[in-house]
Parts: sequence; C-alpha cells; structure tokens
Amino acid sequence: MLPEEILLEAQSELLNWQNCGMSVMEIGHRTQACQRLMQEAEDGLRALIKIPEHYRILFLGAAARTQFSMIPMNCLSSGEQGAYWISGVWSSLAYEEASRFGQAYCLAQLPEKGNEQPLETASLQVKPQTGYLYYTPNETINGIRTEKPPVFKGIPLIADMTSCLLTEPVNISEFGLIFAGAQKNIANAGLTIIIVREDLLEKKPAGPIPTMQDYRVHAKHRSLYATPPVFNCYLAAKMFHWVKKQGGVEALYEQNCKKAERLYQFIDQSSFYTCPIVPEARSIVNVCFTMNQPHLEEQFLSQANRRGLLGLQGHRAIGGLRASLYNAMPMSGVQALIELMSEFSKEYST
Amino acid sequence: MLPEEILLEAQSELLNWQNCGMSVMEIGHRTQACQRLMQEAEDGLRALIKIPEHYRILFLGAAARTQFSMIPMNCLSSGEQGAYWISGVWSSLAYEEASRFGQAYCLAQLPEKGNEQPLETASLQVKPQTGYLYYTPNETINGIRTEKPPVFKGIPLIADMTSCLLTEPVNISEFGLIFAGAQKNIANAGLTIIIVREDLLEKKPAGPIPTMQDYRVHAKHRSLYATPPVFNCYLAAKMFHWVKKQGGVEALYEQNCKKAERLYQFIDQSSFYTCPIVPEARSIVNVCFTMNQPHLEEQFLSQANRRGLLGLQGHRAIGGLRASLYNAMPMSGVQALIELMSEFSKEYST
Repeated sequence: MLPEEILLEAQSELLNWQNCGMSVMEIGHRTQACQRLMQEAEDGLRALIKIPEHYRILFLGAAARTQFSMIPMNCLSSGEQGAYWISGVWSSLAYEEASRFGQAYCLAQLPEKGNEQPLETASLQVKPQTGYLYYTPNETINGIRTEKPPVFKGIPLIADMTSCLLTEPVNISEFGLIFAGAQKNIANAGLTIIIVREDLLEKKPAGPIPTMQDYRVHAKHRSLYATPPVFNCYLAAKMFHWVKKQGGVEALYEQNCKKAERLYQFIDQSSFYTCPIVPEARSIVNVCFTMNQPHLEEQFLSQANRRGLLGLQGHRAIGGLRASLYNAMPMSGVQALIELMSEFSKEYST
Repeated sequence: MLPEEILLEAQSELLNWQNCGMSVMEIGHRTQACQRLMQEAEDGLRALIKIPEHYRILFLGAAARTQFSMIPMNCLSSGEQGAYWISGVWSSLAYEEASRFGQAYCLAQLPEKGNEQPLETASLQVKPQTGYLYYTPNETINGIRTEKPPVFKGIPLIADMTSCLLTEPVNISEFGLIFAGAQKNIANAGLTIIIVREDLLEKKPAGPIPTMQDYRVHAKHRSLYATPPVFNCYLAAKMFHWVKKQGGVEALYEQNCKKAERLYQFIDQSSFYTCPIVPEARSIVNVCFTMNQPHLEEQFLSQANRRGLLGLQGHRAIGGLRASLYNAMPMSGVQALIELMSEFSKEYST
C-alpha cells in the first residue's frame, strides 16, 4: 500500500512533471533533471534515517532477491566466507544462493517458532576469515523477528531490511550493508535500495563480477551507470518526505507496534485463532496466524475479500493466514480485520 | 516519450485499477490480478509481433545492460564461444562483458561510419563451437543500423533490440533470442523484455548462474519468481494495445521511415549540418549529425530547449548532436526540429 496522498500527487503530475512538459517516466537518465531527482531521493533518505557520510546509497533496478548473489560476489575476498543466521525462508534462500557463489556457512539456525529464550551467543563462534554476518531481521513469510545477532569484532553485519526499512528505526552505523526492496514501504516494485559502508567497496572480490552486479560500478556512477528505475525513485523521494511529515520513522514505528500489539492481543485471547510464533520473536509487520479449523480458511478469505480486506492468505511455503501491517496500513484497517475475525469465529465456533 | 493517450489512461486509473480499490502499483505479485496482468502483456506482445509458440517471453526487472552478462552465462555451454558483430558502442560493450563471463570473439568490426558496401560475408567464418552470433541492429549512440549479419547454419542469432522492438517489423523466427529495454518504445525504465527460443533454455550452461540471472528460472515461473516491475508491465500491456490500434508495427515503421527520411534529406541538402554515417547504414530512429561550426552546439541546444525540443545532445561517448525519433515522436516534432535547424543555420552561416 502507498499513502493516498502520494498517489494523488503522482497522479496530478503524471503528464507534466515540474512543469517540464513531460512525464517523469519520460525523462532521460543522462539529464540534469534526472540527476537532481536521484539526488533528492538520496538526500531525503540520508536525512530521514541519519545515514553517515561514509555510507553510499545505491538505487538499483530489479528485485531485492538479486542481492542474494550480489552480496557474496561483492563482499567476500578470496578465501573468505559469509556467516548466515537463518531464521526463516528468506535468510535460508540467501544462504543457499551464497553457497553457490562464494563460501558460506550457517552460524545459527533459529527454531521455526522463533527463539523463546534470549540467544545463547557465548558459545557461538565465527570461522576464521568470515567476511560478513548476514541475517534477516524480519522474516515476512514466517512472521519472525530476530533481534540483532551477536557482534563479532571486525565482522560487518549485513541485513535484508526489505520489510524493516522505514517501519522501524535502524542504526546504520551498526551495519556494513543493508538492502531493501522498495515494494513494502518505499515505492512500487522494481527498485532495491542498498546502503553500504565505503570500506566494503574497497575489498577485492574473489572473482569477476558482472558489471551490472558490481556495487563499485553503481557507486562510482551514482546509480546512473545504466538507466535506473526513475519512476520508482521519484515515488521513493516522495515517500521519504511523507515519512518525515508523519514524524519520522520513530513515529511510524510506534504506530506499527500498536497495530501489531492489538492484533496479537486479539489472537492470543481467542481460542479460534492461534499465532504459532513465540511472543519474543513476533514480527511487528507480518502477523501470521492459523485457525483451529483450517478447512474454514477459504471461507474466511472470501469473507475478507468481500469487505475489502485483501492479501490475508499465508505464503504458499507455510500456509495459514497472514496480515501485513506495513506503514500505509492504518489502525482502522487492523480494527476492521479484528471485527471480521471476531464475527467469523462467533459464526463458526463449535 | 509515451503516447499521451496511455499516460491519460494510467493517470485516471492510478488510484483505482479495474475497480479493485487499489493502485496497480500496490497489487501483490502472487495475486491472480497480477498474474492476469502479466498474461495480458505477454499475449498482447505475442499477437502484435507474431511470436511463435516455441518462444518464451520474459518480463524482467533491471536495465537491458544486465543482458550483456546473462547472455553468455545462459547461452554458452562448456567449450562454446559467442561470436560478436561489432557496429558501435553497445555491441562493443556487450562483447567486452561476454569476454569476462564466457568465451567470446569478434567476428567482424564495422567501420565507424557504417558499411558502405554490402558486407563481404563469403570470407567470414565462425570458429568451431560458436554458441551464438550477437549483434545490435540499431546502435543508438552511433546512429548506425546494421542489416542482419550472415546466417551460419545452426548458430542462433541474438540481437539487442532495445531501440528496434516495436519501431520496425521483426521476424522472430530468424532469432534464437532478442531482448529490449522498455524505455525506448514500450514502457517506463526498469523493465527488460526477453524473447527466447525454447531450445536455448535447454542448453547446459558452462558454470553456475545467479538464480536471478537464470533465464530458466524466470521462464519456469512465468516472470514471477521474484516481484516483477508490475507498473512497467502494466504500461507495456497498454502500449501493445496502442501499437495495434495504430495499425501495428508495420504502420509505425512506415511512419518512422518517413520521419527519418525527411530529417536526413534536410541534413544532406544543408552545408551547415552533416550526417557522418553513410546512407546505407543510417539508423531510422537515432539521427546523428554535426555542425560545421561545432562551437555553436551549445547555442543550438539552448535554442532547442527554449522551443521544447529536448534531448538533442549527442551521447558523451561521441559528441555531436542526435535526434531520437522513436514511435511516440510525431512528424510535427521532426518538422519543428527542421525549422529550428533551418533558422539556426541561416543565422550563423558564414
């Protein structure tokens, strides 16, 4: 979901952007107008989440999944290995891909229902020549949130923040690299944002990297080596303004926590619905739940659709139901979902 | 440039697509609505340019340049080499990239001003185990058009059609694979379309391929393995309808030829402007020209800008001036450019 305000702005400007007589979708990427737009997006994000100067911001085309191979290709020098912290489907896929393009090992695999206890990290040891530690703070499919893994001195932390960037505060200085697909909270699908500490760009990669997958190339050309996804960057720039107007990421985070809390509370009090994830590991933006009569799921989804509550089906990898409460979802949407769940459970309770 | 009609349609639907209550930019890529949209785009293109059934159409995120490494990674089996036909900047870059990720050799290098004579192809020989022959039918930077290279039996022809797809008829059956970035004639930037013959997907690649760079993966998942650039595909589907309504690619091609002819004619009759390309090799969509007083270029460009004639600067790789006459440029735009050129030459002729 994108805020209506942004969609209305984009709509009114669609045929004539900044009185230039063209659509923003038509401007050439070598023009000054395009360079200014990219700069505006970069400056907006940098100010919004306080990205230090020694981090570069890249706006790249393609889905976030492309990073699963770009990270090992770019961030491992010869002989180095990437350590993976596996907490769900996405980190597991990232690990598999890294194993194909670099040396990778699994540092820890979290239980499927999340970790109930604070992590026993004292016994964990990274292997020699570990190039980075990778994790997925929020597993959208599993609905699992992972607190930061232990810090190992000198080993950069890399995080897939696709569902976290702009939904919760992030202290960039704690990371070597983070990335986020735009389609959750930032813009329409087709843009991935990478924030990378400059020293990681100075490493010598183990092998040759396709030019379009090379962070150095995109950093050097300020994301304009090839035609960037201009329209997505345009929407992203608007989104950074919008988030600032809402009181910044902190204010949205507070709202997001409240939305999630209300929904989890309802689920926990119900005997009809269950959240399989232990409370300590529950995602604040992807609330996964099941019904005690799974054969009613179809009926539930069609009732939801009739009320305009869309996208509640769990990911096919794990089934069940899932409510995604990204920034643009208002509390009233959560309230409407709870009402439906309540009525549905009354109707079908045995 | 995108046709105003398409922009107006997109504008009116931007907040509520097909009465679904959401923007097309907000629909999830696992939804049936998204699958239908992708299918509509595919069916539209297939019917428009008569793509045979044994070709697959892929709609991928990222710039067309990504194909420079994807092609050798995907289309060369162990021991095979790609033959490159070099006619300008883009084919030269494709060759360089292929040399890094596969075995590649230059089959022919065309003169910088294009080939005046019909190609002497009898003496050309491909090396043993040539996996494909690659060329760029229209070199946008150099303004050079290349007629099809000689056919070598059993060797698939691969072409970068970024500036050709939908501007001129293409007989798909003559190719193993063609690709096109969307931003010239199809949609906004951030989408690349690949049309590939199925037997090329059955080859065993020489080495491991990043999952997101693997044609097989995208073909198997019908371009929905990862989140595709949905909005671009939505515009592309509209564009395929639009082209059909204009009388198909053949009608646009006829118009494009007329536009180019008028501009080249004016240049050739002028002593103030020169087109460096021999007539036989002139692009129909990128008309490159110089002035006999190159120091006046800046002045020319600023006069052009004042009249709303934008993007006339030649690519920084070769300098000079360049008019791009893609489908959405009307004859009146060409006429306006000729008027400016005429007035400017009268003012500054010595």
